[in-house]
Amino acid sequence: MTVNIGVIGTGSIGSDHIRRIGEKCRGGRVVAVSDLDQERAAAIAARVDAKAFPSGAELIANAEVDAVLVASLAPTHAEYVLGCLAAGKPVFSEKPLATTAADCERVVAAEQAAGRRLVQVGFMRRFDSDYRQLKAALDGGEIGDPLMIHCVHRNPFAVESYHSEMATTDTAIHEIDAIRWLLDEELTSVQVLTPRKTSRRHAHLQDPQIMLYASDSGVRADVEVFVNCQYGYDIQCEAVGETGTARLPDPARLSVRSQARETRAVPQTWQERFTTAFDVEIQEWIDAVAEDRTSGPSAWDGYAAAVIADATVKALHSGGIESIPMPARPGFYD
Amino acid sequence: MTVNIGVIGTGSIGSDHIRRIGEKCRGGRVVAVSDLDQERAAAIAARVDAKAFPSGAELIANAEVDAVLVASLAPTHAEYVLGCLAAGKPVFSEKPLATTAADCERVVAAEQAAGRRLVQVGFMRRFDSDYRQLKAALDGGEIGDPLMIHCVHRNPFAVESYHSEMATTDTAIHEIDAIRWLLDEELTSVQVLTPRKTSRRHAHLQDPQIMLYASDSGVRADVEVFVNCQYGYDIQCEAVGETGTARLPDPARLSVRSQARETRAVPQTWQERFTTAFDVEIQEWIDAVAEDRTSGPSAWDGYAAAVIADATVKALHSGGIESIPMPARPGFYD
Amino acid sequence: MTVNIGVIGTGSIGSDHIRRIGEKCRGGRVVAVSDLDQERAAAIAARVDAKAFPSGAELIANAEVDAVLVASLAPTHAEYVLGCLAAGKPVFSEKPLATTAADCERVVAAEQAAGRRLVQVGFMRRFDSDYRQLKAALDGGEIGDPLMIHCVHRNPFAVESYHSEMATTDTAIHEIDAIRWLLDEELTSVQVLTPRKTSRRHAHLQDPQIMLYASDSGVRADVEVFVNCQYGYDIQCEAVGETGTARLPDPARLSVRSQARETRAVPQTWQERFTTAFDVEIQEWIDAVAEDRTSGPSAWDGYAAAVIADATVKALHSGGIESIPMPARPGFYD
Amino acid sequence: MTVNIGVIGTGSIGSDHIRRIGEKCRGGRVVAVSDLDQERAAAIAARVDAKAFPSGAELIANAEVDAVLVASLAPTHAEYVLGCLAAGKPVFSEKPLATTAADCERVVAAEQAAGRRLVQVGFMRRFDSDYRQLKAALDGGEIGDPLMIHCVHRNPFAVESYHSEMATTDTAIHEIDAIRWLLDEELTSVQVLTPRKTSRRHAHLQDPQIMLYASDSGVRADVEVFVNCQYGYDIQCEAVGETGTARLPDPARLSVRSQARETRAVPQTWQERFTTAFDVEIQEWIDAVAEDRTSGPSAWDGYAAAVIADATVKALHSGGIESIPMPARPGFYD
Repeated sequence: MTVNIGVIGTGSIGSDHIRRIGEKCRGGRVVAVSDLDQERAAAIAARVDAKAFPSGAELIANAEVDAVLVASLAPTHAEYVLGCLAAGKPVFSEKPLATTAADCERVVAAEQAAGRRLVQVGFMRRFDSDYRQLKAALDGGEIGDPLMIHCVHRNPFAVESYHSEMATTDTAIHEIDAIRWLLDEELTSVQVLTPRKTSRRHAHLQDPQIMLYASDSGVRADVEVFVNCQYGYDIQCEAVGETGTARLPDPARLSVRSQARETRAVPQTWQERFTTAFDVEIQEWIDAVAEDRTSGPSAWDGYAAAVIADATVKALHSGGIESIPMPARPGFYD
Repeated sequence: MTVNIGVIGTGSIGSDHIRRIGEKCRGGRVVAVSDLDQERAAAIAARVDAKAFPSGAELIANAEVDAVLVASLAPTHAEYVLGCLAAGKPVFSEKPLATTAADCERVVAAEQAAGRRLVQVGFMRRFDSDYRQLKAALDGGEIGDPLMIHCVHRNPFAVESYHSEMATTDTAIHEIDAIRWLLDEELTSVQVLTPRKTSRRHAHLQDPQIMLYASDSGVRADVEVFVNCQYGYDIQCEAVGETGTARLPDPARLSVRSQARETRAVPQTWQERFTTAFDVEIQEWIDAVAEDRTSGPSAWDGYAAAVIADATVKALHSGGIESIPMPARPGFYD
Repeated sequence: MTVNIGVIGTGSIGSDHIRRIGEKCRGGRVVAVSDLDQERAAAIAARVDAKAFPSGAELIANAEVDAVLVASLAPTHAEYVLGCLAAGKPVFSEKPLATTAADCERVVAAEQAAGRRLVQVGFMRRFDSDYRQLKAALDGGEIGDPLMIHCVHRNPFAVESYHSEMATTDTAIHEIDAIRWLLDEELTSVQVLTPRKTSRRHAHLQDPQIMLYASDSGVRADVEVFVNCQYGYDIQCEAVGETGTARLPDPARLSVRSQARETRAVPQTWQERFTTAFDVEIQEWIDAVAEDRTSGPSAWDGYAAAVIADATVKALHSGGIESIPMPARPGFYD
Repeated sequence: MTVNIGVIGTGSIGSDHIRRIGEKCRGGRVVAVSDLDQERAAAIAARVDAKAFPSGAELIANAEVDAVLVASLAPTHAEYVLGCLAAGKPVFSEKPLATTAADCERVVAAEQAAGRRLVQVGFMRRFDSDYRQLKAALDGGEIGDPLMIHCVHRNPFAVESYHSEMATTDTAIHEIDAIRWLLDEELTSVQVLTPRKTSRRHAHLQDPQIMLYASDSGVRADVEVFVNCQYGYDIQCEAVGETGTARLPDPARLSVRSQARETRAVPQTWQERFTTAFDVEIQEWIDAVAEDRTSGPSAWDGYAAAVIADATVKALHSGGIESIPMPARPGFYD
């Protein structure tokens, strides 16, 4: 059975997913698209032989649409996801699930009311093979019980519209989810260190930042975010356990010896680093929908990330240690 | 336009390509299959919604088939490729193009007679991103003019039916093509060194072997083949130029520190190492067919590899230096 | 001219230095030793053809002694160093310079009163070739102005008498000095994170700990101390600047591929990692004494480290951010 | 007891050893020097408080001299070593032991006639810690019985007087000894491949060269010599056994990420790579002399290397496979 997918939002990431579903994934096809820019939606629909809808609501309502992928502007995610839940249709929401924890909570409540899991949130690190090796090492006891996690998230350059809170909401949000997933427990407090700003910054931007988290069991995780590091896109993660450590490898690149140096290229974009993870993410979502089962980061994971991000932004502004007001996870999400 | 593909041979690699075309590539679909085992062909045809043909010849002749992928037993490749040339249809032949240089020559002659390039041969190293970085470094002058190439091709275990000549025809054949492609010139002589056999060998098998090649311009290339190395699937290649060297990286794997050691897993199968290269290979073939152009290793490359392999096997048996009787490449293949 | 050296304290590190001066360094010889255990002093003196003195004070006073190396118990360091200053003799003090900041301050005052620099303190990281490459990269502008430093200091096992404050005074003290030296500025505040204790700990011990420092200019430095990490002795340091990063290499070790894994041994002791740094440290001290000049970490560096260590221990107990009450550095120490 | 050493030859390497004995080694002192350039000998003797002798013969004869280090011009080595044997004094001869195999044989015969081992030859690779790890891995069975050894010996530039035979006698000679030592068996045949010469060469010089050896048991070893590789001093060695491989690490160097690349410096001189090995070599020789025992590469090793080098030079000129006429090793050298 082929999953008929409707895609809401045909901007950069939406177009990317449409291409992905059509060209790299199996078992699904895009049958419907919608976008605020209806001309754009129509053009893309024509290209992939899908139908353009004037609104996301109408797309969701259409009987031909089996499942929905939400890639519209972040403030609209919650509304569309709630619409899908009301219609009883599986939905993949790009991160964030919603722009406020309160809206995430509404989604979580609605999904529980619906009585079954229908929502997957777009945290793609969980689908990267290096992260999966790290998760397997932790779960397999290769390094003993975890005590610390050290993360680094660097981009070569940020656009001028990138502001200090986005270091959390757009950047560290990936590490927030990855840390929860690796540890399989919740984070309870957060503090943000603000090193001297890089002089290569935009004047308004606190860059770099270091986020410090504590988990339920007392594991400490730190996340360096540096979005104007100049030299490349560099993702690092090391877990330290009671008997050993595990660290993500650097991407494999040709080693050249010349002019008294050995050099390897450093990736410059997240696409170079994570394209395959996105492919796997969408493929596993389609497979899960086809088999009527649950997979990947849940609405609860989206909600938890929002709660943590809110506390992180609060900590950025307060300069102090903020507790993270995380409710107990309902059994529904076990 | 979607390329309608007929696949001849539905064994391991044929099935793999059928799955690849259906699930991972864009722009093509399998519309026809054939196999000596007609029941098997019928079952697979049913699964992918294609038609089963009683023979490769009938598959080639069918009007619905735009292009043919030959993955049958090696001794049948030449016949099917010649059939495609007669029918004027693009054909992808798994390696080898033919089991004798004479048969390869017939293909090359037939393609020239047909007046346009229709054949691509399955040397997938050229589509691996690490090899492409190496090729780019050479072509870009990063290490100066090449002087030497050192290659290693190790498998953990070989099946009992693997015999000493297969070290060339099944294993080093990949390096033979890669060396020609990296250097962009022909090989002129070959010698084979036979180290003491591993005691973990099958009694009949000379394993390891070291092939030594010289090129037109005097570059020396060596290829260590060791198909029972026990520890893993390990592909290495280092090019040494007048001003520097370039070396393929090892695959990136999680680094674990524990029990006084740092460890990384070593791949165990060629699938782990080269699956993506196969995907790219077939995708680029489909793209080329759709756009009516030429891409990838040609019939001439298949022929040249056969000539070199013949001389290599001769050298294995003679113990001496054998010249490689390579004709001049027709302008048709420039 | 050969420097005639008196060594006070013939325990583990003292004996080590005596052997080093005799066997690995040039330009100096041990002519006098003293120890609380006078028999031990006598035995060692006999072995290296030196004279044993009943007390450190008498050793310092002896006319034959050109320079003094203090390797006695930490609480006695200040007294002997002050004695050397009174006698106008160059003195190398093992770390710490004194066990209290107040005592360090007395040394600093006495040295200024003496009118010339006579004291070198035993922070040997500054003499390690990897650290020196890192310092050169920073000073040479290879990574731009520094913004962050990430340090890791792991030991496989700690003795039972090791207590939580020693994570600072015995372990992180090396990073405290290294960070000051790398940045060439002072640290102004400190906070200590206390992750969940390893269950392989001694019950009383907070292990691991993470120290967080801020510098005058706003650079942030973090130091992970984990003295029961089980797997090895592991020192890491990465500096992050405005245009790049520089990281200490892991020690070079044989790479073995076997049983599906690539493995390298991890050092188990600080001796494996830093023996050469100790050799260079003592050699450069002897050279400086012979040439009547100043070299290496000064009494001020010893004092600054003590002030920072005090604040770090305070932060460990308070759980909060502690400011570091560092006086302005006298011009005498520029 | 201090070993009183006489040094014959005070050129570059001789001066280096004199400094080493005085400054870095324990248990020995230079008491006598001689050189063709008597003024030079006198100057150096004055500096290290030794006595200058008008000839090597007189130095050897002097009663104060316990042991002799021969670092004179290569053609004079044999004469001085024979002189030491006649005098019954331990002697360290820089490589080569003699410039002809015949002269080496005279030394071997004389040493046997003397009835005890007195000669150590200067093959310093055996004292490098990386090579020792490799030897230990082989001897410990970590990679099973050896089947192949791949060596690389690259220098950035060669002086103009360097000629093609020196690729063997000055350069590969180190690998020749290392291979014999690693395998603990003799080499039986040799062939030399001559790749296209680098255009950065001196006109007369065949550079690079690849030497191919076979051992008694059938192990194959290859040695790439490339003395104008431009980019650095690069020594590599990988042993391939029946169950795994072991490879020397690259020297540890600071890793810098900047301008889209990760870079590490490559050593430029053998001094950077092997200075410590020389220190250990001379130290172990002094220790052995002091304890009246045998250590390190023997006269037989010097002789065997000469026989192999002769055959290698012959193979360079003949272009064919040359057998190595190695006599059976006398039990005296077991």
